[in-house]
Amino acid sequence: MDKLIEAIIAKDYNPTVVGLDPKLDYVPEYIVDECLKKAADPFAGAAEALFRFNSALIDSLCDIVPAVKPQSAYYEMYGIQGLMCLQRTMEYAKSKGMYVILDVKRGDIGATAEAYSRAYIGKTVIGGQEYRAFCPDSLTVNPYLGTDGLKPFVKDAEENDKTLFVLVKTSNPSSGELQDLAVDGGRIYEKTAALVRALGEPSVGAHGYGKVGAVVGATYPEQLKELRAKMPNTFFLVPGYGAQGGKAQDVALAFDKNRLGAIVNSSRGIMCAYKKGDWRPEQFAEAARAEAIRMRDDILGAIGK
Amino acid sequence: MDKLIEAIIAKDYNPTVVGLDPKLDYVPEYIVDECLKKAADPFAGAAEALFRFNSALIDSLCDIVPAVKPQSAYYEMYGIQGLMCLQRTMEYAKSKGMYVILDVKRGDIGATAEAYSRAYIGKTVIGGQEYRAFCPDSLTVNPYLGTDGLKPFVKDAEENDKTLFVLVKTSNPSSGELQDLAVDGGRIYEKTAALVRALGEPSVGAHGYGKVGAVVGATYPEQLKELRAKMPNTFFLVPGYGAQGGKAQDVALAFDKNRLGAIVNSSRGIMCAYKKGDWRPEQFAEAARAEAIRMRDDILGAIGK
Repeated sequence: MDKLIEAIIAKDYNPTVVGLDPKLDYVPEYIVDECLKKAADPFAGAAEALFRFNSALIDSLCDIVPAVKPQSAYYEMYGIQGLMCLQRTMEYAKSKGMYVILDVKRGDIGATAEAYSRAYIGKTVIGGQEYRAFCPDSLTVNPYLGTDGLKPFVKDAEENDKTLFVLVKTSNPSSGELQDLAVDGGRIYEKTAALVRALGEPSVGAHGYGKVGAVVGATYPEQLKELRAKMPNTFFLVPGYGAQGGKAQDVALAFDKNRLGAIVNSSRGIMCAYKKGDWRPEQFAEAARAEAIRMRDDILGAIGK
Repeated sequence: MDKLIEAIIAKDYNPTVVGLDPKLDYVPEYIVDECLKKAADPFAGAAEALFRFNSALIDSLCDIVPAVKPQSAYYEMYGIQGLMCLQRTMEYAKSKGMYVILDVKRGDIGATAEAYSRAYIGKTVIGGQEYRAFCPDSLTVNPYLGTDGLKPFVKDAEENDKTLFVLVKTSNPSSGELQDLAVDGGRIYEKTAALVRALGEPSVGAHGYGKVGAVVGATYPEQLKELRAKMPNTFFLVPGYGAQGGKAQDVALAFDKNRLGAIVNSSRGIMCAYKKGDWRPEQFAEAARAEAIRMRDDILGAIGK
């Protein structure tokens, strides 16, 4: 986790990751119209519009924000062209020095988990040579299938200097239906937390955090506080700030006394900042930057800069 | 679920789905060598080899097997080219009259679940028009995020004549770590089962099964029997037969008195049948057919044809 933490420190302790979940509705109309007009087919046009939007956001944010988190669903929705846009976006963000967390929430059993892991954070062997299919620095993973669904990812993270974030307590309204159920010795999310903590322990780095992080939503501040205490060596990815209702004082609970320990996601809040206030659509990247600065100061204020 | 059930009945009640999880190691060497030699880049060569393998298997099986289940991980592992091969494979299987269950085990919160659902079983809107990004008939889904992660899929399945299979009790050794934990009123997998049952009830069709199915592993026969009794209107997708240890008498527990109610997956057993016995590599498709017939007769024998 040191690489991500150093990126955060280098950006004046800005603990923000920008979620790149670009529905076409989020992209200013003039970009969409131009791309659809020029493109050979609608999916190619949509993908080009998404890439123009993403790359302009990255240009505008890369000197103040340490990381981006593309959400795979929004690219898969645009088919093969959408996935090519995802790959271009990740490569572009990395070329600008940003840490890339790919939000895919994959989860499967042994051999299949291994294949997913190779696809994103490991290597694919073809004709005796190793290649990388996709290039993120980090991946989100679903724990429903238990340890043998997670171990291949942990192994690849350790061997390839990558990281993981395993879903522990998600930010959505129904997250409690399974995750909060009481079992012998605690709740489901606590069981998952213990598993994640153990998986990350062997790889604790210079800043005190292992390569296996946890997703814990800002919308459940009590659990966030509880899990911060119980998982001192687990870095958190915190969704749910802003649009979903999480406040700066809520996310502040995810941090340690060194102002580290978590990275907070904002997707729509930053991508669609130009739709609020007096911005013109052409100013979308500028508006995103202003919102990213506001968010940074809001959170750093709450954790006591 | 009627479309799948009718496909099963039309193939003499063959309750088998062939898992197309093609690692390059599974493909006969002469195909891999030829494709890698001709291709512009290794991923393109790998993808071409996988497609030749898949399409030959489909040709050899389509008159006796009702369905295929490509596992997305094995295509994602080969990057964009791998995903193009997945799309070609699905289109080819459908052109041969097979029902396509895409095994992606996606699971996410509201808006993102909606995007995944649109990608695979719904429609993507671009410039006011609706398009289909990928073309499976059915999709596997992970329930860890609760109802609001599942509802968008259920809605699209109902509106687009598609089906879902939600993970309830998976076939892997550590599946019990979360799924078997005892909570108030039962175990986690029973809670998931109740949720899945309820989600499928509104769409029960002519053959007695709703559009929301359940994944229940053959490796846990007791739970399979229990869930069959508790979920009378839920169709099962049963992994774990063969290589993972599930026997015909185990999977027989998933069926109703009309010899319906489940479809049993075999991946490696069929794809790699040519590696057992006296087959030459060139006979891989013939060997797959022989194994598919053996498996069909094995299961139909156990459920009492």
